[in-house]
Amino acid sequence: MAHQQLPDSLRGPGSLADAPVDRGAARPGGALPRGRSGRAAKAAQDTAAAQGALPSAAGGGPDAGTDVAHERAAGAGTEAGTRPGDGAGGRRARGGPAGRDVTRDRADDGDTGSGAVASGKTAAGDRPGGATGARTAGEALAGYLREQATTFLRGLSLRTENEGDSDLLLRGSSRRIAGVLHTYAPLTDPAWAEPLRGELGWLSSTLGREPQYVGRLTRLLEALRRLSAPGADQPVPAGAKGPAGPAAPAGGGPLALGAARAAALLERQLTLARTRAHSATLQAMGSARFHGLADSIAVLASEVPLTATGSEPAATVLPPLAGQAYQRLWDAAGTLPLHRATQPYNAEAMRASLGAELTTDLQDTPWHQVRILLRLGRYAAEVPGCGVPEDPRLTEAGLLLQRHREAAESAAAVAAAARTPRIAPATAYALGVLHADQRHEVEAARFAFSRLWEQSGLPTRPPGASPRPGRGTRSS
Amino acid sequence: MAHQQLPDSLRGPGSLADAPVDRGAARPGGALPRGRSGRAAKAAQDTAAAQGALPSAAGGGPDAGTDVAHERAAGAGTEAGTRPGDGAGGRRARGGPAGRDVTRDRADDGDTGSGAVASGKTAAGDRPGGATGARTAGEALAGYLREQATTFLRGLSLRTENEGDSDLLLRGSSRRIAGVLHTYAPLTDPAWAEPLRGELGWLSSTLGREPQYVGRLTRLLEALRRLSAPGADQPVPAGAKGPAGPAAPAGGGPLALGAARAAALLERQLTLARTRAHSATLQAMGSARFHGLADSIAVLASEVPLTATGSEPAATVLPPLAGQAYQRLWDAAGTLPLHRATQPYNAEAMRASLGAELTTDLQDTPWHQVRILLRLGRYAAEVPGCGVPEDPRLTEAGLLLQRHREAAESAAAVAAAARTPRIAPATAYALGVLHADQRHEVEAARFAFSRLWEQSGLPTRPPGASPRPGRGTRSS
Repeated sequence: MAHQQLPDSLRGPGSLADAPVDRGAARPGGALPRGRSGRAAKAAQDTAAAQGALPSAAGGGPDAGTDVAHERAAGAGTEAGTRPGDGAGGRRARGGPAGRDVTRDRADDGDTGSGAVASGKTAAGDRPGGATGARTAGEALAGYLREQATTFLRGLSLRTENEGDSDLLLRGSSRRIAGVLHTYAPLTDPAWAEPLRGELGWLSSTLGREPQYVGRLTRLLEALRRLSAPGADQPVPAGAKGPAGPAAPAGGGPLALGAARAAALLERQLTLARTRAHSATLQAMGSARFHGLADSIAVLASEVPLTATGSEPAATVLPPLAGQAYQRLWDAAGTLPLHRATQPYNAEAMRASLGAELTTDLQDTPWHQVRILLRLGRYAAEVPGCGVPEDPRLTEAGLLLQRHREAAESAAAVAAAARTPRIAPATAYALGVLHADQRHEVEAARFAFSRLWEQSGLPTRPPGASPRPGRGTRSS
Repeated sequence: MAHQQLPDSLRGPGSLADAPVDRGAARPGGALPRGRSGRAAKAAQDTAAAQGALPSAAGGGPDAGTDVAHERAAGAGTEAGTRPGDGAGGRRARGGPAGRDVTRDRADDGDTGSGAVASGKTAAGDRPGGATGARTAGEALAGYLREQATTFLRGLSLRTENEGDSDLLLRGSSRRIAGVLHTYAPLTDPAWAEPLRGELGWLSSTLGREPQYVGRLTRLLEALRRLSAPGADQPVPAGAKGPAGPAAPAGGGPLALGAARAAALLERQLTLARTRAHSATLQAMGSARFHGLADSIAVLASEVPLTATGSEPAATVLPPLAGQAYQRLWDAAGTLPLHRATQPYNAEAMRASLGAELTTDLQDTPWHQVRILLRLGRYAAEVPGCGVPEDPRLTEAGLLLQRHREAAESAAAVAAAARTPRIAPATAYALGVLHADQRHEVEAARFAFSRLWEQSGLPTRPPGASPRPGRGTRSS
């Protein structure tokens, strides 16, 4: 059962990113006229003007579990609004039931409260029925989507000032909208939602590439420094562009230069990849495709095409759907080799490190799937009235699996660098050590996740979730 | 205090092996006429004839904690007499108080009991005062030394039949005699004991080299197999002698051949080292130096030059000396970074893996010291009347630190192989992965040892040990 649900559950944001062009070109009903991009820009300006005090406060919200490295890179201004293990930034700007928390959250963070209240009103706080639990499921979902659309448009308006913060807002809101449209799919018109999700996946994966390369290079240079320097007195000359001279032994013999050369090689390759990703982002942001997406989001801020299910009470419809999302998460986590991973130094993640790439991918994929399902579950829990309490341990679990993914992808990047023709044996040796080090980071992340999942009292069943009750059983 | 005791404590067996030639040539009173080697050979033949049923029973005794790999390599005949975590083989052949256990031990092992009883008589059982705890410290020590000398001579007589078993007996008894002479040094004439210890250290380290290379190659080929084969269907062609042909990509790209080539390179280098070690052993066994040592051991079987302290009661003299040995062990273990090592995946052992060799050595040395002290403590506890109970956990701790040393030395061998000129980058990459893997084995061994030491209820003080009481305090 778990396996059967997985493929479906993975049709969330991101997994559609590989084929979004066709979807975009062929989307049936949801295709908006491209010419309406002026409307999106206008809305973004209005939003930014109304919530000028908010960028740093809301910046901590988007995707705190998955973009930590980037958030760090984006500077303290973004981080200041984030409380560890807490989606406060995202929750703060939410209307309805969560609106009660707004003042307290902002007081905790030491900000002024006016912006958040304004945000709450902008999103759903000023709509009839938005303040109590008696509203319909469609209203709850639409409120959340409007709020995320507002964040999206604010990110758009920020782009000329601060690309990093802007991309963070755009990615966070894109992922949330796509994820929630997936989890609560029965509430919205699929002919509208499916293409929109595809476009959002395309955008968030496009925007995510550059920070990934930045984080990967930082991680690998840091690891090389740790691996080669016994103390702090022998830093790797990371900035030194590859001294492609002779392999003259220096210091500790022919292998001593290897770490420095490996660092230079990785820096060259990952900086090139980063530059390309940046160009791709710029190109995407100027494309007609993006303008079309921005128009869709601008429309989302005012109207969400709901189905008949959306008119049922939120308390009836939302919890089972959120429960299903958590059930998929728990099922997928149940298929992981958690018992083995809780044994330290099991050397499982190292097993295939000299074999074919495919083997490693096969081993890592189930963990990546759980990471995506954790994110979907976290987003699903942000919708007011879904009945799922926020659990900081799930955020922590997400962070661990994010570390898992970063280490796995870094190891793959090292292996790719080792395939560079005509590198020196010492460089290849250092890359081999680095590869194994990153695979051990993978194993360490699995260990930490498994311990958290099995030992810290996380419920073995999703909170309040059971296989979705049918309509008949609900009334009985 | 702990640090001050360490250098002294490490002047045990093995550490003198680097300068034994001068000692042997200049040894003052203990130097026996070389011409007496006929006496040693005669004694060995007599012993072997009297105890023909014993080889496999006593073979499990010598150094079960440190030579497991070799014992396994030496075949099931040797292993059959060994009970895990128990020095039963060594204790079985011991006279005096331990003689009570002989029949039971042999019954447990399913052997015939006659040989063991004969051994007990040969060692000390037929001497006056040897059967009760009222005997002197010198008698207790001499009984143990005679027993080990008997094992030594039996090993000598076995040499033409089975080199592996013979070397095992010779090494185990050499280490025990040297270790016990060190721990209970005040009981014997230092002018006789010190040179003998040096010669025994030379012999045991000479004999130990070949099995070390065998074990290292096995360990590294096994690791390469694990690292490169996702299943059992892709074994590394270890027997294939290095295909020094073109680096044609096969299967998983240019890196796929690396593991096989690394295996071939390691096999060439370690097989060569093994062959040289074997020649060195043969040369040593035929040398006048060895014959002189064998004569000393033959004399030891009949007379041990004791000091005045040796005439005091065993219960008064032996326990404080054994306690000192344990105190040195506990002090040395107390200086290890145990708290850090109990955190899994601390990456400590990896820190210097791309730096200079020296750094790694500095990091590993304290652990190696504890391993030696564990062995000395174990041998000290084998002397009857020493007052220290045998503790299987110390044996387990010794096995873990033996794993630590094997992994550390294997990693160093891999680094040495990576310095081979003109190796292919893919080979160097595989060696780098393998190096890191072995350093992680080092870390895993530290983790296991630290957990055992800190968490399994091992006493924080040595059993019954305190700083050695002076003569005045003893009578009061």
